[in-house]
Amino acid sequence: MLASYLDSTNLKPDCRREDIEILCTRAAELNMAAVCINPSRVSLASHILQSSKVGLGTVIGFPLGAATAQIKVQEAEQALRDGASELDVVINIGAVKDQDFEIAADEIKSLLRLRKEYDYLLKIIVETALLTVDELRQMTVLISDSGADYIKTSTGFASRGVSLDDIAIINSVKRSELKIKASGGVKTLDFALQLINAGVDRIGSSNAEELVAACRAVR
Amino acid sequence: MLASYLDSTNLKPDCRREDIEILCTRAAELNMAAVCINPSRVSLASHILQSSKVGLGTVIGFPLGAATAQIKVQEAEQALRDGASELDVVINIGAVKDQDFEIAADEIKSLLRLRKEYDYLLKIIVETALLTVDELRQMTVLISDSGADYIKTSTGFASRGVSLDDIAIINSVKRSELKIKASGGVKTLDFALQLINAGVDRIGSSNAEELVAACRAVR
Repeated sequence: MLASYLDSTNLKPDCRREDIEILCTRAAELNMAAVCINPSRVSLASHILQSSKVGLGTVIGFPLGAATAQIKVQEAEQALRDGASELDVVINIGAVKDQDFEIAADEIKSLLRLRKEYDYLLKIIVETALLTVDELRQMTVLISDSGADYIKTSTGFASRGVSLDDIAIINSVKRSELKIKASGGVKTLDFALQLINAGVDRIGSSNAEELVAACRAVR
Repeated sequence: MLASYLDSTNLKPDCRREDIEILCTRAAELNMAAVCINPSRVSLASHILQSSKVGLGTVIGFPLGAATAQIKVQEAEQALRDGASELDVVINIGAVKDQDFEIAADEIKSLLRLRKEYDYLLKIIVETALLTVDELRQMTVLISDSGADYIKTSTGFASRGVSLDDIAIINSVKRSELKIKASGGVKTLDFALQLINAGVDRIGSSNAEELVAACRAVR
């Protein structure tokens, strides 16, 4: 089932209440893995999704990753309090560029402390478009070791989204427990299926409903 | 002096420590109005700028404006604690689209409560690229009435930056006390001077140093 791989996403800053209502309702009807929406829409989505099995994902420090670690943790905590069950957190990309990997590792550690109080999936967004191959390898190892659930490739706000090369690089160094969420520019069924074949566990797409429809049309 | 109008800006998620050091040092040498950088770089900039008159600006809820009001206030407070003197805060654009203007007004009110403890300039980013003419008028009036210091046009992350039309619309309804910061795609001296002629009080640009050099070359 393709839908079980999909995080149906709307992170547009100008989306309306109705857009979120429709996204959540359709995600529940189609048995998507999760929705992925902005923090100020989590309370609304939580009401709509309360009796469904769809994960309620939101984004933290998004899309630049350049908030302080302390604010990311506070934002995460409020999102969990508001009803989120999955957090897609952008790593501090500047710190990666400074080779200050401890900042990145500490951020994840602080976020995971929230597990004492909340049960949630943690996905760490690395923004592959902005990383060298070496940096992507280093971050994959760091996230593998951190206890986060997923490495997520892209925000969808950079110059490009996920590529199959990204997935190959991640797969070459990650531990088997670490899952992969591919995101950014996944618009066609063909590409979605290629990503799944390459081993990704989730796909974030603002085109999720169309992907499910295309998959059904093929069968 | 053109420099006194300029907020020298680097909000790239992948900028390095050295990029921020150079930005701040040059802003001080050239007597720019302020720098504008991401929150996780404020502490660093604060050290560099401590003996200068350059404002230390950072961005809050940036660039989507879709964090909750509570997190925006916490992010603002931490930035002020870290040494920021100017806050460029993105309004909740989704709330504007929902015609939920109270959310926008309350956000500004909560931010202004920090004035009890901190002296700072508050600039509210409306992202003109995403607003209708009517919405821009309504937001200008709301911000005029709020007690914020500036309306700022753009994040630089939308489909377009400031236009002279934006400035004309803002000028047609704003109170005289409200200042204007034009931003997004201000790359040439010619456009910067047109904006100043149109009455803007500040210009945010990632090209600020080149603008000052071009201005000197003309004289």
